Amino acid sequence: MGLAVSGKNRVWICYCLSSPTDGIKPTSLYKRPEATIQQMEYRKIKGEDEDRDPRGVDDVESLHGKSLSLADNNSLATVGETKFDKAKWKRKSVVTLALTILTSSQAILIVWSKRAGKYEYSVTTANFLVETLKCAISLAALGRIWKTEGVTEDNRLTTTLNEVIVYPIPAALYLVKNLLQYYIFAYVDAPGYQILKNFNIISTGVLYRIILKKRLSEIQWAAFILLCAGCTTAQLNSNSDRVLQTPAQGWVMAIVMALLSGFAGVYTEAIIKKRPSRNINVQNFWLYIFGMAFNAVAILIQDFDAVMNKGFFHGYSLITVLMILNHALSGIAVSMVMKYADNIVKVYSTSVAMLLTAIASVFLFSFHLSLAFFLGTIVVSVAIYLHSAGKVQR
Amino acid sequence: MGLAVSGKNRVWICYCLSSPTDGIKPTSLYKRPEATIQQMEYRKIKGEDEDRDPRGVDDVESLHGKSLSLADNNSLATVGETKFDKAKWKRKSVVTLALTILTSSQAILIVWSKRAGKYEYSVTTANFLVETLKCAISLAALGRIWKTEGVTEDNRLTTTLNEVIVYPIPAALYLVKNLLQYYIFAYVDAPGYQILKNFNIISTGVLYRIILKKRLSEIQWAAFILLCAGCTTAQLNSNSDRVLQTPAQGWVMAIVMALLSGFAGVYTEAIIKKRPSRNINVQNFWLYIFGMAFNAVAILIQDFDAVMNKGFFHGYSLITVLMILNHALSGIAVSMVMKYADNIVKVYSTSVAMLLTAIASVFLFSFHLSLAFFLGTIVVSVAIYLHSAGKVQR
Repeated sequence: MGLAVSGKNRVWICYCLSSPTDGIKPTSLYKRPEATIQQMEYRKIKGEDEDRDPRGVDDVESLHGKSLSLADNNSLATVGETKFDKAKWKRKSVVTLALTILTSSQAILIVWSKRAGKYEYSVTTANFLVETLKCAISLAALGRIWKTEGVTEDNRLTTTLNEVIVYPIPAALYLVKNLLQYYIFAYVDAPGYQILKNFNIISTGVLYRIILKKRLSEIQWAAFILLCAGCTTAQLNSNSDRVLQTPAQGWVMAIVMALLSGFAGVYTEAIIKKRPSRNINVQNFWLYIFGMAFNAVAILIQDFDAVMNKGFFHGYSLITVLMILNHALSGIAVSMVMKYADNIVKVYSTSVAMLLTAIASVFLFSFHLSLAFFLGTIVVSVAIYLHSAGKVQR
Repeated sequence: MGLAVSGKNRVWICYCLSSPTDGIKPTSLYKRPEATIQQMEYRKIKGEDEDRDPRGVDDVESLHGKSLSLADNNSLATVGETKFDKAKWKRKSVVTLALTILTSSQAILIVWSKRAGKYEYSVTTANFLVETLKCAISLAALGRIWKTEGVTEDNRLTTTLNEVIVYPIPAALYLVKNLLQYYIFAYVDAPGYQILKNFNIISTGVLYRIILKKRLSEIQWAAFILLCAGCTTAQLNSNSDRVLQTPAQGWVMAIVMALLSGFAGVYTEAIIKKRPSRNINVQNFWLYIFGMAFNAVAILIQDFDAVMNKGFFHGYSLITVLMILNHALSGIAVSMVMKYADNIVKVYSTSVAMLLTAIASVFLFSFHLSLAFFLGTIVVSVAIYLHSAGKVQR
């Protein structure tokens, strides 16, 4: 599990062509990439607003409006290029761009470490350190904020049970999903699982619509179907057809898992946005505290003897440290994007990161891209265009 | 060449997954399927007209308008559900539906005949009989029209050199293209060629825009790219990646061939629509007369000895007769659709016929569909939706 899933159980390209964060431990599964597409989208829509269709702005606004209305009641009313919107857009662009780069490099680090040989270190300790590092960074950020702004209702660390009680729920959902992951491999092989995992795209879209009550236009739904088909196409290889022989139980489990991770993602967005004025670093701190707790338990259950005999840091290398750093930073970036963007962007960015990784590995590892990959990339690119075009039309 | 291309040089599924008329002799290459999509499209738009966006009708009308304005100057002005439009729509639907069914069954007949063993008959004689049969049917239809309507300026067989001079041009273009076909196989194998042939989709769209001056919306262009990607995806197999090793000459030739067949298709539409009031059976008669001439020459060059020694009908079987009948009928249907619809529909219908053929052969020949085929089918279906949705939006 965790980093090891990608390290041990899968051919690396399958990993690269899947959500690079998928193998991670439940507690660090908040690490879900949000991407540059939102940014493109906004650039596009801004472009189109001026010379085409002002409704574009309304749409974008109503979207922020829904998600950030509690944070700023003006945002629903404010239409057009206010300074506030510019700042919001810039912040969103920066975090999404950062996240896509981090996510892509994540998969590349994993390949690199695979080239360096099998994982020697215990995955649970690595994941524990990831959560600890995220906690530390959140606290450091809070420290600076307290210095400048002082301690306020929104940035103080102390919290109510009511606020904090929901934070472990997504982690629990991912835990169940990752337990199912063990059983699904009885019905489908790892590459087949990578293909079935694309159900996540559809499930996220559906749950996003149902739970967060956000609308997608018909064109955007078409784009979402294309995104799913495009990602699957990009992952096709000579053995892919085997997935069609998956027994009914396999299909059911794949769909259940897709619903679980989709729900966990949407739920995370819901709880982070529930109190938008709340400082994200505080929200992260509590998310990551639970992350540390989950992984501490995991160490005790999975790797207690190994840690006792060989030591906590046994088998750590430069690459291990880099991977831990990368996971920590991208984890924080995901929380940021969850707060300032949404799950739809996350799904698109997962795909973009996947494609970027494969393209980067052509240069880094002289990996050969397949025709299926090119076709999938074309379909995904058109889907991205349609997602933003679809917004403007309604 | 001709029917034999599909019979001898290609694995049948490649044939089924390509334009089923592609192997046909130049003179019978007017046989280009026009499909049920136009029909779907119209149903959809009609649905949308009533409850959504009257601009839908404007768009459809302006499209007819351009193509049929000479036939009926009201058609540009007439917006909405006039009796005239209903009749036009019904006629279009019938011919396109007929064509798609004929085209799909065409490929299936070819598989069937392949199962029955190699072609014994001479392909040139078969193609000659196809053209002759089409000529006879056109004359028979004209006979009935003369009886009912009498001989008019529009339905009389006699014609001017000016009218008839352009008719052999598309045939000549297809001839050049089919000659190139011999040389391209030096650079790419048959399945690879099937994949490169999808350039036809793009070239047809571009030339349709340039030559016939008809507009496609951004969404419709996106749909066209998806159609191309989807068809290619549906054709993917374990050896498809070999096409990526195609040398530059191969790519250039593929593009030139795509431009040639795209131009031939668009040019055929242009000459058939040049004088819309002209009875289609007369236009067909002259098209097919040239078809007979081309094939007569082909018999003399290719199969003169065979025909002399073994006889004209040597190796003919029931299936051969059915194939000739099918090619003749679908050839006529194409001319009809060329007159009443356009090349965009033709491209979409080629894809639909391709998919229908593969699906039908699951039941007929217990053929196994690949995951790539399903993904391609999804992408093509979304492309069809977007093509009609794209119309309504502008």
